[in-house]
Amino acid sequence: MAPPKDIHDIFAFLGEAGKLGHIERRTSPIGLTRRENTAEHSYHLALMAMVLADEIDPEVDLNKVIRMLIVHDLPEVYADDSFIFTRDANQSEIERKAAHQLFGMLPPKRRDEFLALWEEFEAGETPEAIFARAMDRLQPTFNNYHNDGGTWVEFGISADQVIAKNEPIRTVSASVWAKMLSLLDEAKTKGYFASSAKTKKTGTDA
Amino acid sequence: MAPPKDIHDIFAFLGEAGKLGHIERRTSPIGLTRRENTAEHSYHLALMAMVLADEIDPEVDLNKVIRMLIVHDLPEVYADDSFIFTRDANQSEIERKAAHQLFGMLPPKRRDEFLALWEEFEAGETPEAIFARAMDRLQPTFNNYHNDGGTWVEFGISADQVIAKNEPIRTVSASVWAKMLSLLDEAKTKGYFASSAKTKKTGTDA
Repeated sequence: MAPPKDIHDIFAFLGEAGKLGHIERRTSPIGLTRRENTAEHSYHLALMAMVLADEIDPEVDLNKVIRMLIVHDLPEVYADDSFIFTRDANQSEIERKAAHQLFGMLPPKRRDEFLALWEEFEAGETPEAIFARAMDRLQPTFNNYHNDGGTWVEFGISADQVIAKNEPIRTVSASVWAKMLSLLDEAKTKGYFASSAKTKKTGTDA
Repeated sequence: MAPPKDIHDIFAFLGEAGKLGHIERRTSPIGLTRRENTAEHSYHLALMAMVLADEIDPEVDLNKVIRMLIVHDLPEVYADDSFIFTRDANQSEIERKAAHQLFGMLPPKRRDEFLALWEEFEAGETPEAIFARAMDRLQPTFNNYHNDGGTWVEFGISADQVIAKNEPIRTVSASVWAKMLSLLDEAKTKGYFASSAKTKKTGTDA
């Protein structure tokens, strides 16, 4: 049997991690008007990575990507979510502190794994992190497409902004990129995007 | 680039799978009164498996467990959730049909992987499936403990029922089992459980 302290610590961690459902994102789940929470968001990223893994180049360690996506937003239980189009430069440092606070509750082996996965995602340099970050962009884009424009409409986002934010997808998969562009074309036709002029005027294109 | 049909099919699958957030379970997330949805439930099972993997015996292929937990409840987008204490005998067949319908949207390689993971979880015979199923029992138990008794109080569940439903945990981890029993003892002291007599009278002990 493991040291009682380890089990105690792990359960304390799970009590904190269980609050990820309190953290609301801007985007909504497909077909719903409520905000998506970070736990379900992370779930859908992991699932999306699983079904798109055969579409990417170079090949990645998919198991590592899945673990990375399960871990990458956990510090939000202490640091809250930041909106991709208005992200603060300090957000990364706030989240790093939160990561150390939260993952520091775990026994050393798992703590070190979680911190390493989180840092790898943040740095975005390995093939696994690049793929994971691409999924993190694609998922809200996909949901907005299914939700009559979602946060694009709500916050007056232009198609150019969305394409720029989704650029990481281009680097990992020609087929996913092409498919995403076709969805954005359709979204344009439906009038989901603000014109660039309007966006510049409101200053959200900075 | 992959065949456009594959990408089209995968995106169609993701559009359906994205509705897992519509499926409400009986249990609530820790610290909230709303019902938990199946996407966030699945997320927490995968996370729980990751941090408890060092506490179990025999050792398992953790990556397979994580994938299994991501996949295991997906058919609920067509079959809805069933409450563990009132589960219908036909539920498994309903879910199997739903699994074939949903996973059948994917290209063959991924379809076969998802169906195999789902069947392995349902059969509950491999060490990976046994561990995954134990997590599926532990998570709502853990949430109820944190939520003033949650569905135990709401549906008049007795401690004996909870212990019986969590029996799979005993077989995978002495330390997790001991910790869970200590939480249940605490929950008893707090009066979260119905007496066995009351439970029998309401017929939910069948």
